Amino acid sequence: MMAGGRSLEKIAATCIITLCLACLHVTSLKSQLFTRVGGLRYTTEPPISYKTLYFDQKIDHFGFLQDGTFKQRYLVADKHWHQPDGPVLFYTGNEGDITWFCNNTGFMWEIAGQLGAMLVFAEHRYYGESLPFGQESYSDSKHLNYLTSEQALADFAVLIENLKSTVPGAQNSPVIAIGGSYGGMLSAWFRMKYPNVVVGALAASAPIWQFPDMVPCGDFYKIVTQDFAKSGNNCDRNIRRSWKAINNVSSSASGLQWLSEEFSLCSPLKNKNDAVTFKSWLQETWVNLAMVDYPYEANFLQPLPRWPIQVVCKYLGFDSTVSDHQLLHGVAQAAKVYYNYTGSSPCLNTSQTATSSLGALGWFFQACTEMVMPMCTDGVQDMFEPEQWNFQAFSDECNSIFGVRPRADWAGTVYGGKKIGSHSNIIFSNGGLDPWSAGGVTSNITQSLVSILIPDGAHHLDLRYSNNLDPPSVRAARALELKYFQKWIRQAQKSTGTGSTISKKRKNSP
Amino acid sequence: MMAGGRSLEKIAATCIITLCLACLHVTSLKSQLFTRVGGLRYTTEPPISYKTLYFDQKIDHFGFLQDGTFKQRYLVADKHWHQPDGPVLFYTGNEGDITWFCNNTGFMWEIAGQLGAMLVFAEHRYYGESLPFGQESYSDSKHLNYLTSEQALADFAVLIENLKSTVPGAQNSPVIAIGGSYGGMLSAWFRMKYPNVVVGALAASAPIWQFPDMVPCGDFYKIVTQDFAKSGNNCDRNIRRSWKAINNVSSSASGLQWLSEEFSLCSPLKNKNDAVTFKSWLQETWVNLAMVDYPYEANFLQPLPRWPIQVVCKYLGFDSTVSDHQLLHGVAQAAKVYYNYTGSSPCLNTSQTATSSLGALGWFFQACTEMVMPMCTDGVQDMFEPEQWNFQAFSDECNSIFGVRPRADWAGTVYGGKKIGSHSNIIFSNGGLDPWSAGGVTSNITQSLVSILIPDGAHHLDLRYSNNLDPPSVRAARALELKYFQKWIRQAQKSTGTGSTISKKRKNSP
Repeated sequence: MMAGGRSLEKIAATCIITLCLACLHVTSLKSQLFTRVGGLRYTTEPPISYKTLYFDQKIDHFGFLQDGTFKQRYLVADKHWHQPDGPVLFYTGNEGDITWFCNNTGFMWEIAGQLGAMLVFAEHRYYGESLPFGQESYSDSKHLNYLTSEQALADFAVLIENLKSTVPGAQNSPVIAIGGSYGGMLSAWFRMKYPNVVVGALAASAPIWQFPDMVPCGDFYKIVTQDFAKSGNNCDRNIRRSWKAINNVSSSASGLQWLSEEFSLCSPLKNKNDAVTFKSWLQETWVNLAMVDYPYEANFLQPLPRWPIQVVCKYLGFDSTVSDHQLLHGVAQAAKVYYNYTGSSPCLNTSQTATSSLGALGWFFQACTEMVMPMCTDGVQDMFEPEQWNFQAFSDECNSIFGVRPRADWAGTVYGGKKIGSHSNIIFSNGGLDPWSAGGVTSNITQSLVSILIPDGAHHLDLRYSNNLDPPSVRAARALELKYFQKWIRQAQKSTGTGSTISKKRKNSP
Repeated sequence: MMAGGRSLEKIAATCIITLCLACLHVTSLKSQLFTRVGGLRYTTEPPISYKTLYFDQKIDHFGFLQDGTFKQRYLVADKHWHQPDGPVLFYTGNEGDITWFCNNTGFMWEIAGQLGAMLVFAEHRYYGESLPFGQESYSDSKHLNYLTSEQALADFAVLIENLKSTVPGAQNSPVIAIGGSYGGMLSAWFRMKYPNVVVGALAASAPIWQFPDMVPCGDFYKIVTQDFAKSGNNCDRNIRRSWKAINNVSSSASGLQWLSEEFSLCSPLKNKNDAVTFKSWLQETWVNLAMVDYPYEANFLQPLPRWPIQVVCKYLGFDSTVSDHQLLHGVAQAAKVYYNYTGSSPCLNTSQTATSSLGALGWFFQACTEMVMPMCTDGVQDMFEPEQWNFQAFSDECNSIFGVRPRADWAGTVYGGKKIGSHSNIIFSNGGLDPWSAGGVTSNITQSLVSILIPDGAHHLDLRYSNNLDPPSVRAARALELKYFQKWIRQAQKSTGTGSTISKKRKNSP
């Protein structure tokens, strides 16, 4: 603990509530926490088995004073691996327990046999079991100091180099990085920064351009809005109207009570600040629905019906004559599609998110340092209350929570922003329904930096197990991804692995 | 200062002497300190002028706890710069005062007009005036913790991004990285890691492969030996014989006294340990001569005649009948070519190197952390006493001096080792006389990762001012380098600067 340092968990717990009450910046912070595709697997999916292993990883790759190590967890499935030199599909773990990603990246499990590939799922430091300082890891900003994407990428590189030198038959195995969401950003960046370690990368639903001055800050919420607009008559309009209705109704004590009952809230709304929190929570609900608007029933932290936004919109078809109470009754029914599809939730909790608090805290820290992702709404092109992006306020919040300030330009400098054309062998896949596609690469950059669009897809649908209800676009995407993998593997196997021998005889003239 | 920490300067001063006495590992450490091409400029060279500026640079780019800044010095000469969008030639500073490199990289000054280029020379953190913690920077390993090549590259990237956004007309200026020796390694790595910031790099005499398991550890000293072998009859043989002669003569007190007088040593040799130091100093002298074996008189920290090894070898032409004393008389005359060409040195100092002690200490730290460059001798293929590469002993020395341990594999993992074929637009130039070419890229890797060989060149001769005595090979090298620069600049000016717009229409199939 630092001298005079307070427990960050306590600070954060207090701050998050305070900030939710005080302003919406935390909403944008929270919306940056990509919803986990965790939870239970379908029983119809094939059983999977893997070994759980641990690697002694340096706590600090970029300094030599801190020479300690921690146990990085990684999962290995080599049942289908063709020895020697068979490929390795390497999942670059995101902000959460690696077993969730392992269980929910069915695409890798489904193609392992065809490629003769070993599967490796590497946990991201500071998440799941991979805690650099054990239970102290989140205790203060001193211990959090090694939670950066650069350190995580270095972990992946060192782990792979170690596997290649210690696993018999793996020395010349081409390795392909795969990840979704933040994990997809890591996959893309991993290929950019360590092309010596991975021959290519699939960056699924990876918003590598959701950074300052790269894409308009409002596009994210525009896509959320479009999803609702096309899923039912007047659906987006009624959500846009609902904020004023909430303001109207919550202006009286009886209104607050009515709202609390209508939404079956676990903690009744008591005042205006509670109403602000309530609106943030609703906004996050609509964002989450947009991310997981899948074409089949899926079981996340909450189970959902197929095309859940269509189901939600059935309760939001009012015309403009609807009263505030009628409208909010519909909104409540809609929210319960997300929070209580199975009917087993006794009440709805506006302070709960669909993620583990540890993972959320870690991502808050990352958002407060490197992952500065501007978000804004105007209430016209989107269905939300207008809210400008305010970097200074955001920075001040970060400073009050963690004692650190975000560096707005760093991610663009270190990962190249829009100037990434000199890299190679990266697939950027994006779903047309996914709000994160706003910050994604959605057109080809070069012949080997390609975009795959899945118009009917939500957040990294392509990484999930195949399903009879999958739209043709995601089937085609997966087939194309597989073809690129095969091409990269062939390329790697043709080369001797050392670039220096490839073309010694080429001429020298420019 | 750390609790209980001792002044590193004192520790190092003691240790360096102790280690010189104790073993030869420090010799290999010292030989890694690339000799400075510093000192006075020739009066026949055109006068140069530049602005000296300072940039507030983050002390730690890879963590957010340490949010302090320091003043990074950089020099700007924009007399020839074509505004707007004219190119920038950016010198990636090495382990020393940036004004030295600025004054001794005549190539950049000579081509600025032709390219309409702005010249920028950026100082490397912890050297010259760019001290992150002022006079405390070297006080202990805590303060030294931010002295890494990754931090230096990040400094360069952030500085360039800042110049582009603040200097009118520079926003779309293509930037080319240029460096020699360690600065050349940085140039190459800079293009590899930040291709968004620089369109290409000239890595002159950059031993990017002088790392574990990349090249044979003995090649460096083999090249030194070859330089002497071809510069005079029996020259290498007599140096190979000299070590035993020193051992013989130094075994008696009268012999030590004779040696001290013969070499005009400032501090007479007193015992066997002094004789070991003396041999290390001589070995380093031969290495330095190999690095600076230029075809014309040059003024370094010591002035030297043209082709200095040929001059040295005039004193080392004995046949095998030579006596120990005759031989060592010749060696003394030879050494004085390097240390006393002008005849103004009253005595020779075996504990002095040609570099500032601050720079040396910084490089020792870098060698003790990332820059692990194995060196060895066998006394057969080279003219030195046999000495194996011993990583463990080296690591133990580093630990005793700095409290850090080198990471043997890190440089290979982070900078790609031999697997760099996916990068582009890097020229690796190497001199055939330069021992550092042993760890350099001396054949083409791809069409845009090219090698330029200068058979008659010593250490980065191509970066120096042109001279009437320049061999045709270095003239050709400079002309070719200029052509590549022009090609990269044309490429950059054709593109809009944002890769995403280059080839939107290309097809998606693998």
